[in-house]
Amino acid sequence: MKPKLADERALAALERFEIELPSWGFADTGTRFGKYPQPAAAHTLEEKFADAAQVHRFTGCCPRLALHVLWDLPGGDARSARELAERHGLRVGSLHPNLFQEPEYKHGSLANELEPVREKALAQVRETIRLAGELQCEEISLWLADGSNYPGTADIRARRRRLETALQAAHAALQPGQRLLVEYKPFEPAFYHTDIADWGMALLLARAAGPRARVLVDTGHHYSGQNIEQIVAWLLHEDMLGGFHFNDRRYADDDLTLGSIDPYQIFRIFAEIQAYEAERGLAAGLSYMIDQSHNLKPKIEAMLQTAMRAQELWAKAARVDYAALAEHRAAQRLIEAEETLQTAFWDDVRPLSRQWREARGLPADPLAAFRASGYAELAAAARKHHHASGASYA
Amino acid sequence: MKPKLADERALAALERFEIELPSWGFADTGTRFGKYPQPAAAHTLEEKFADAAQVHRFTGCCPRLALHVLWDLPGGDARSARELAERHGLRVGSLHPNLFQEPEYKHGSLANELEPVREKALAQVRETIRLAGELQCEEISLWLADGSNYPGTADIRARRRRLETALQAAHAALQPGQRLLVEYKPFEPAFYHTDIADWGMALLLARAAGPRARVLVDTGHHYSGQNIEQIVAWLLHEDMLGGFHFNDRRYADDDLTLGSIDPYQIFRIFAEIQAYEAERGLAAGLSYMIDQSHNLKPKIEAMLQTAMRAQELWAKAARVDYAALAEHRAAQRLIEAEETLQTAFWDDVRPLSRQWREARGLPADPLAAFRASGYAELAAAARKHHHASGASYA
Amino acid sequence: MKPKLADERALAALERFEIELPSWGFADTGTRFGKYPQPAAAHTLEEKFADAAQVHRFTGCCPRLALHVLWDLPGGDARSARELAERHGLRVGSLHPNLFQEPEYKHGSLANELEPVREKALAQVRETIRLAGELQCEEISLWLADGSNYPGTADIRARRRRLETALQAAHAALQPGQRLLVEYKPFEPAFYHTDIADWGMALLLARAAGPRARVLVDTGHHYSGQNIEQIVAWLLHEDMLGGFHFNDRRYADDDLTLGSIDPYQIFRIFAEIQAYEAERGLAAGLSYMIDQSHNLKPKIEAMLQTAMRAQELWAKAARVDYAALAEHRAAQRLIEAEETLQTAFWDDVRPLSRQWREARGLPADPLAAFRASGYAELAAAARKHHHASGASYA
Amino acid sequence: MKPKLADERALAALERFEIELPSWGFADTGTRFGKYPQPAAAHTLEEKFADAAQVHRFTGCCPRLALHVLWDLPGGDARSARELAERHGLRVGSLHPNLFQEPEYKHGSLANELEPVREKALAQVRETIRLAGELQCEEISLWLADGSNYPGTADIRARRRRLETALQAAHAALQPGQRLLVEYKPFEPAFYHTDIADWGMALLLARAAGPRARVLVDTGHHYSGQNIEQIVAWLLHEDMLGGFHFNDRRYADDDLTLGSIDPYQIFRIFAEIQAYEAERGLAAGLSYMIDQSHNLKPKIEAMLQTAMRAQELWAKAARVDYAALAEHRAAQRLIEAEETLQTAFWDDVRPLSRQWREARGLPADPLAAFRASGYAELAAAARKHHHASGASYA
Repeated sequence: MKPKLADERALAALERFEIELPSWGFADTGTRFGKYPQPAAAHTLEEKFADAAQVHRFTGCCPRLALHVLWDLPGGDARSARELAERHGLRVGSLHPNLFQEPEYKHGSLANELEPVREKALAQVRETIRLAGELQCEEISLWLADGSNYPGTADIRARRRRLETALQAAHAALQPGQRLLVEYKPFEPAFYHTDIADWGMALLLARAAGPRARVLVDTGHHYSGQNIEQIVAWLLHEDMLGGFHFNDRRYADDDLTLGSIDPYQIFRIFAEIQAYEAERGLAAGLSYMIDQSHNLKPKIEAMLQTAMRAQELWAKAARVDYAALAEHRAAQRLIEAEETLQTAFWDDVRPLSRQWREARGLPADPLAAFRASGYAELAAAARKHHHASGASYA
Repeated sequence: MKPKLADERALAALERFEIELPSWGFADTGTRFGKYPQPAAAHTLEEKFADAAQVHRFTGCCPRLALHVLWDLPGGDARSARELAERHGLRVGSLHPNLFQEPEYKHGSLANELEPVREKALAQVRETIRLAGELQCEEISLWLADGSNYPGTADIRARRRRLETALQAAHAALQPGQRLLVEYKPFEPAFYHTDIADWGMALLLARAAGPRARVLVDTGHHYSGQNIEQIVAWLLHEDMLGGFHFNDRRYADDDLTLGSIDPYQIFRIFAEIQAYEAERGLAAGLSYMIDQSHNLKPKIEAMLQTAMRAQELWAKAARVDYAALAEHRAAQRLIEAEETLQTAFWDDVRPLSRQWREARGLPADPLAAFRASGYAELAAAARKHHHASGASYA
Repeated sequence: MKPKLADERALAALERFEIELPSWGFADTGTRFGKYPQPAAAHTLEEKFADAAQVHRFTGCCPRLALHVLWDLPGGDARSARELAERHGLRVGSLHPNLFQEPEYKHGSLANELEPVREKALAQVRETIRLAGELQCEEISLWLADGSNYPGTADIRARRRRLETALQAAHAALQPGQRLLVEYKPFEPAFYHTDIADWGMALLLARAAGPRARVLVDTGHHYSGQNIEQIVAWLLHEDMLGGFHFNDRRYADDDLTLGSIDPYQIFRIFAEIQAYEAERGLAAGLSYMIDQSHNLKPKIEAMLQTAMRAQELWAKAARVDYAALAEHRAAQRLIEAEETLQTAFWDDVRPLSRQWREARGLPADPLAAFRASGYAELAAAARKHHHASGASYA
Repeated sequence: MKPKLADERALAALERFEIELPSWGFADTGTRFGKYPQPAAAHTLEEKFADAAQVHRFTGCCPRLALHVLWDLPGGDARSARELAERHGLRVGSLHPNLFQEPEYKHGSLANELEPVREKALAQVRETIRLAGELQCEEISLWLADGSNYPGTADIRARRRRLETALQAAHAALQPGQRLLVEYKPFEPAFYHTDIADWGMALLLARAAGPRARVLVDTGHHYSGQNIEQIVAWLLHEDMLGGFHFNDRRYADDDLTLGSIDPYQIFRIFAEIQAYEAERGLAAGLSYMIDQSHNLKPKIEAMLQTAMRAQELWAKAARVDYAALAEHRAAQRLIEAEETLQTAFWDDVRPLSRQWREARGLPADPLAAFRASGYAELAAAARKHHHASGASYA
């Protein structure tokens, strides 16, 4: 493939790439040992929209903001979110009920042994679906913290049956155009068993739920050494992939910024998707979302950095010569195939990204432009009346 | 549950428990760094049957011997195996084609890019099925070493499609009463991607293959920390579990003797199965097989030790008070549920095992009886003309 | 070894076995996703002592309570702790400064780049030492959450040098009879690098600190598959082992109850210690402590369960025939050696534990006796004025 | 840092970078499941030298060839190796005794319970040292496969003492100018415990051996998720790092080509070294070696690819602005520090590598030039009389 053609593909790829921001990524988060409050952290929904708008303003690829119903729409009121979105030039992205925080969910939500707890959780999902309708969100994203901590304490099959029933009920409540995304995670906060522990369980449950359920892949929710791009390839083949929660990690679900630990892995995931799309001649219809926990980095800057890194890795993946790759693979020329992939990884696409940004009237260097804007300092000053909740471990 | 009732259940459980021996477990095996030949190792099919018969003679629970077609039935001749089985009072258990050893399979067998290689592999599977018919084996067990070592070198989805086609063809060749067992493994000998890497992939392929395909769980084929009993529970729920290859490990697929590293895990797997069987009131129809590599331990003794440990853990699982467990779970009494499980683990069932053996005319202490028999010394003397071939894995 | 002799050794072993309780194990704890408050959780130091006294009252092996200075001795006042200990018939065990929770420690404590932060942290350590003197605690236990989340952000060697300087200063402040215990942990809450990541780093730093520094092994602070008993053996050989924080886990630092996931591992650790003590003819001088997070189990019951399990596994380890083991090892008789170890694991020591308890006037079944006492219900009623802080993730 | 200055540093770094080739990397290797013989694989020492010379001829950075005494100098004859090295314009690099392959080493070599086995192993090490003297090799590299497969079968502390004694004896035999490199590995081929399992054990043993013993880091010999560059930093600080065996892996010791799975990790290791060297103003005196198993890739091509990737990652590490990094770290500016590191990773250094090669009269594209040379075809034709021995690992 000629470099010029590769560059054109990369520019086209950048043109269609959007990555959704999480409202909770602008708020104070932490580990179980404590939170480190940041002066400019967002505390209100308005502040979250305002911060997200900064990220979109400087990168041009983050027009959507994901919300957690419990945190962001506490009274079940969609109107303010709708107005805030409009005012800030954003859309509401996926909607998440929050089924892990309240004491009732100590032993799980939709898989709980107690019917009233399951009913409460299902009602929250239905409310999320209703709010999604009002907010014109197309995606309801379910992460269930359900599981158990000790062998013997849970009837794994019974809990699985309850999950299936609940997901079917949730699916039945979907409004036209909506999808249900089912997430999996091998451990934490349940340590012995998680009811939806891996992609296979998520796929079987999503299939059982109904035709508009798909699997959501969180890149941090895998065992050490697991081949995530293979899972992506299988889910694409099965037409069961709905989208991603991106982040990076060294060992567990560390929620670090995308590409900070293993950028080659994200590139390979993107390459798997783009090869699939190239083969089929149409987009895979996936949602790309960020799900990170910026405990230490300044939050808006970390989002800018993430969005840029995602764009760069996406552009690199677009520059892979998939036709040559296919030929090398068919002929079992391993080094040639590998180098075809790696050459696109090593090529520097940052000039291309800058070119794309400038063509859209965006600053060539979003991080520098944001820093120069003084927004963070103003936000810190305006938000200083917030006092940190200062949660401690024990 | 009264201790006496628990003991009766354990004795009944022992009565129905059989575990299959692998022919390759009596031969010289090794790691990639070398083999350590043992003087009494079996080199011929006859020696393997003779050794397996010793294990069954002293334990009474190992009436079947699994064979590898390439190693054990090289000319495609079933007659000698049938005669040997009869002479030694054993049955031929599951049959394995060997699709990983020959140079053609360097880039895989049924998923290979090259049609002639796939055809050869499929022909070997069909030949295995034919031999299984002649030997009245009900199970053809497929472990595919297919995969790749480097990102970019394999079209994961194309290989998956080829696998599906091949497994359907294999399934179509099954004779009445036969089942196809599909194994999964996350890595080794392919290091970057294995075409059937986990239980989810095995399940989807087995479903695609046909109604008589099931998943085989090798306890050593999982990521560190993966909850194997949960996978077992899901496969039981999906009616897709066919059987097990048992062994133990610390880190990778170490093929150590069952229960040598984590006996509580094997107990939990057995408990998951027995709870399922108790609920349904009928047996789950699973095949229990040993798949170990006794590089250092004397092979027959290691098999005796394994069979006894398996019986003990199976008997312990039979003594769990599942009715009490269900009540504690339903009421979310964690400690009570956990202790219900653990109490059965801690109860000493070795007297019960001895009682069961003595009632069947078996020696109370199989290891001591075997050692006293002088068999190993005779075998070593008789087999000293063998020189270590070293050429193949087993 | 005669069973009777084995039992005598086990009873003697029980006689000398003490395991320390953590004050934070009685308080509401959680994961980063939330706390599930328990009605009977302890909120004041007095409640923690009262609860700990229950555990000791029923098990007879938990006479010490570890304290966190920040949580338990907030004003630097040792008097109330001393009085509470005396009133409840307990001693104060090890003392922990808390160097991970306050915003200043965002980038670490003793390894922090900023001198004022290091000074503050060191002052906290010195204050802990002072309080330990007043409370006659012999051990100051240091767990440093220091580390970094992203490659490039920390000068690993510079931080290591700062740690060494700080630990030397801490050591210099020790009072007569005091020891400094240095803990290691591979990840969490720092995700990319933890300044004291493994036993080797802890050992080198403890050696550099001074002659009264030792390494503390937390069983949950290891990589998947790591052989903890080997580390214990090496630390014993180097005379650098100080003690343990016991808990269990499946994947990360899950802080589950001891022996709930892998009881054989705890047994092997105990066996390594008792073999060492048997060889030397004197005690290894180690501190055994519990460090668990009972998010779901009732806290006092979980402690009772833990103490009993620890006693049982300790008693099992005492019943190993180490002389026979040594002979089998010397002759490289693997199965015989392994069975010598395992037979002690499988022997039921619960009758022995009951016998030991009854001889000391303790209830045969501590859990049942505690439940019958009505303490938990009274505590829940008395503590209902506490409202949960209800920390949320974001 | 100005780009021009960065480039100058990179060119200087390339000038001093050498990476040693392993003789066994040109021979047929495999997994425990089989070898896939390659027609052009080297079978004789002469062929190994000839092949290695090709790699050096085209890359200019591989002037040394590591040898295994058992495989490469079977009769203890150094003369032919010396002559071959001279004829091919190479030097003999590090020398390895082979202490894992012969049946005597079934239960270990220098840590074995049996004195004759230990004596034999020590004699092999002394012979290696003698041969190293004749070959003017400065490094004797020890990888011990010693360990055990089952809990209870080994006295870990006794084995450790034997190792110390043996390493001291080996150190005492060193000739002037020689160093002893001690490798560690967490598992395989011993699965339960490996006598030198991690860097901490290797460091303590190397210190005990004597002043000219250092630790060798094999990048594939770590637990999943372990931070290798931190270990490198600590070993540098302790002045105990001797060198590297480079390769890559996804899960275990997969021996894949360097940078094929996680190139960012190798870059970070190189950056840790170059930062150390920049600080001290002199080279760290490390040996860089390749230790890979090209089961599937053509061997010479895989070596060329590896050497080029190593050069590129080394050159990238040389372009890091360490002064700016230090400032950002000191001020705890995380994103700025991280981007300082990453920018050097993303900058394309391939033009620089080509420039460096051309300045030395080397082909700009070594892989293409080698392919065009016809060497592989000639070798395959000339070596077709070899039949795959299959008997040993390499």
